[in-house]
Formats: sequence, C-alpha cells, structure tokens
Amino acid sequence: MAPRRKKIYEGKAKILYEGTEPGTLVQYFKDDATAFNAQKKATIEGKGVLNNRLSEFFMQGLTNIGVPNHFIRRINMREQLIRQVEIIPLEVIVRNFAAGSLSKRLGLEEGTQLPRPIVEYSFKNDELGDPMVSEEYVIAFGWASQQDLDDIVSLALRVNDFLSGVFFGVGIKLVDFKIEIGRIWDGDFMRLIVADEISPDSCRLWDVKTGQKLDKDVFRRDLGSLTDAYTEVARRLGLMPANATPMNKPTLIN
Amino acid sequence: MAPRRKKIYEGKAKILYEGTEPGTLVQYFKDDATAFNAQKKATIEGKGVLNNRLSEFFMQGLTNIGVPNHFIRRINMREQLIRQVEIIPLEVIVRNFAAGSLSKRLGLEEGTQLPRPIVEYSFKNDELGDPMVSEEYVIAFGWASQQDLDDIVSLALRVNDFLSGVFFGVGIKLVDFKIEIGRIWDGDFMRLIVADEISPDSCRLWDVKTGQKLDKDVFRRDLGSLTDAYTEVARRLGLMPANATPMNKPTLIN
Repeated sequence: MAPRRKKIYEGKAKILYEGTEPGTLVQYFKDDATAFNAQKKATIEGKGVLNNRLSEFFMQGLTNIGVPNHFIRRINMREQLIRQVEIIPLEVIVRNFAAGSLSKRLGLEEGTQLPRPIVEYSFKNDELGDPMVSEEYVIAFGWASQQDLDDIVSLALRVNDFLSGVFFGVGIKLVDFKIEIGRIWDGDFMRLIVADEISPDSCRLWDVKTGQKLDKDVFRRDLGSLTDAYTEVARRLGLMPANATPMNKPTLIN
Repeated sequence: MAPRRKKIYEGKAKILYEGTEPGTLVQYFKDDATAFNAQKKATIEGKGVLNNRLSEFFMQGLTNIGVPNHFIRRINMREQLIRQVEIIPLEVIVRNFAAGSLSKRLGLEEGTQLPRPIVEYSFKNDELGDPMVSEEYVIAFGWASQQDLDDIVSLALRVNDFLSGVFFGVGIKLVDFKIEIGRIWDGDFMRLIVADEISPDSCRLWDVKTGQKLDKDVFRRDLGSLTDAYTEVARRLGLMPANATPMNKPTLIN
C-alpha cells in the first residue's frame, strides 16, 4: 500500500505518511479494529473506507461553521490529506449521556442523561492505558496551558453542538465522542485545531428509537457486524445509496 | 377553532391563546403566509401543520443539547404548549451566507459565504417594517442590556451550530435564520430563552447539491409550491414517510 513515501507514525487504526506538500500529512485509514487497549483485535474489511469518508464529511461540516480542523481533502478511498499538527497528547472526551468508563466509575446506568455536557481528558499513552487526567494534571505536566484548555473546551462544545445536530437530524443520539487537538503555527502565532478523526470509531451513536448501537461498541461487545453499523450511519447521512448493503468495498456517494 | 379560551395575541402566522396551566400559552400555527411586511398574502393549506411539527422537532433538539427554549409539548396538529415569556421586541437574525436584505444592502451576491456567522437585530414593529437596529440602539432604547445581548449572541450562535449540523446531515445548507428571545422569571432571577418558532418560515434553507430553495422564499419569489418545499424538509428529517407527497393534511410521523 505504501510505496516509497515515508511513514511518520503508525497507530492502531491509522497510518500517517509524509504529505505531498510541506506542512501536510497523508492519513491512511486501516481496517484494523482494537478495543480495551488493544487486548481485543480484528480486521474488519471496509471499516477504513467508511471512516475515511465519514471523517471527511464531519470535518467538512466543521469547516463550514468555522471550527478549524486538520482536514484538507480526501485523496482516495482510504487516504486523506491533512494538516500536520503538533498533537496535544490528550484524548478530549465530550459526554452527553453516561456510557462506558463513566458508567462504570460512577455506577451510572448507561444512557442516563448528564446534567450538562461534560468534557474530560485522558492522557494518550498506550502503556498506561490512556488514564483519565484532571485539568490540574494537564497544566502541571505542561501538556496544555489554562488558556489552551479554555480554547479546547470551546472547540469541544462547538463540535458537540454541531455533531448533536447532525445526528439528531437522522434519528441518532450522540452519546459521547472523543477528539484530539493539535497546534499549528503561523510564525509566532499558535492556533489549536481539531485533529485525528471523527467517525463511529470515536463516537458512541445510538439509534433514537431502538437504542441500537451504531458505533465501535458493536465490536467491543460483540453485538454484530461493525460494517453493517457504520454503513447504516453513512446511509442515513446520504453518503451511500439508500439501498446500500454492507460490503467489503462500500460504494460511497461523493 | 378557538372555543372559549382567551386569545392573547394574533400575529401573521400564529395565534397565542391562554394556556392550560399558569405560565403557559397555546401557540396555534395558521396556514397564512405573508411576505414583504404583509403586502403579499396567501393561505397555504398544510403550512401550519408542517411548521408546528418542525418547530417542535428543532426545539426538542435544542432542549437535548441544553439550549433553553419555550417549547413544552405538541398538543395536536396545529397547536403546541409553550412557556409564556416576556418577548424581547427584536428579531435576532444569524447569517452564514449572504441572502435577502443583506445581499441588497451590501451588494453581495446571494450565496456568498460570510467571513463568519453574523448576528444582527431588527426591531419588531410592523408599521415600521421591522427596521434593522444596531446593538447601540438596542441598549439605548432599553430593549435589552449589554449583558442580555451577550447572552443572546451566545444562544444564537449555539442554535446556529446545532441547526447547521441538523441540516448539513440531510444535505441542506442553513443560509440564515431568525429567532426571538423571551425572558422568564424565577423569583428575581431572570433567564433568556429561545421563543417564537424555528421552521422554514424563519430559516433560509438551500439544497446543498441543487441550490433549490426549501423555505419561505419559495412563496416570496413565486418559485413553486411552498407545501412541497416544507414537506421535503420534513421528509428528510424523518418526520414524514419517505414516499410522502405534499397534501393538504400532511401525514406526519410522531
């Protein structure tokens, strides 16, 4: 897949290659799925194609409303050109309803509506299992300043309002999601932008009427076909023909 | 239509009646359409039904993300129960793309993307033709304080992020929209909430691919059937069966 170009980084679900222009990278979406800090692994044909297209869609929507992000353009079925950023080593998580680790830690039933959206942080470190950290930790260890955190919360809440709308319009509840934030520099002037990806790998998405999960929990909890679930999300958003059936090479509408 | 209950106010497209509980009103959606400060008038069968359901849908979505608004519940095809507010006599307009009066005043081609969303105000006064007013006017004439305006802008931009997402997910561009804001009181504590309605009467909505107008401009500019356009919006949002055809009594999905 990768010809002569230089691999910059390989993660669990994506590979970053040197970009075609200075300050850019190529983000390649793999079919690999991992959960529980990679203790559970599988290859799910077509997942990378779906996430590449879905992340393009959401990032373009954010660009439309003026939320800065790393997306430049999609190159092909599995690759997109993105801006190279200095990534802040945090997973920024926004939660609207209790689920996953929050439910476990606080003993809250999954699906409980939170009093308001809650933004939290995990330190990105696979060996440590991405531990949750407080704002105090973030600032004390120098991962981000208080000003950065204020900007990160603003970005995260705007992304939440927008994505909540996107999914509400197609009968899906946005339970929670995770984004990453990167720094870009224009001379001495630093700006924070949304990076990484926005896809059913990084969101919890429940059908409003049935509660059916349309996200990576399908894989984590062995609830059926992950490609079926992601295809359904893409179909509702008009990115696949209405009669689309899950397939190894999803037919996407541009 | 209205039995013994007391009419509080009749506007061009809606009537307000005394509510069933203290602090509430019944908002009745008429089929009347007016434009150009009521110089153009028509009755468009089914419009009130569609707007009642669509406004319910958008207000419920706002409630979900914690944007306070007047909607309590839909009563029937044409009526909804709302909180009684002290309305601020302003139309709060948020624009993402140039259209309508902005295009005319500044000579900007319709559809030109604005550098960022712009919030503007009109003084609600039919005799004067709802003149545009600056923040200075609003504060000097006592319609709202600087603190109110700060809160109004925050509310308006959150509504914009959310609605932009809702429409983006179903292939529609949110060009601009208008909301009204009301005050509610809890003892001495005053809060501002979104009031009036959110519907294709109060938004400019263009199909992303074809540019087709799906809003009240269809009526203003004689571009075809207004019910067809509003039905298409409701259909895309899953509020009508996929095979819905425009009809005098739209079949809505609850």
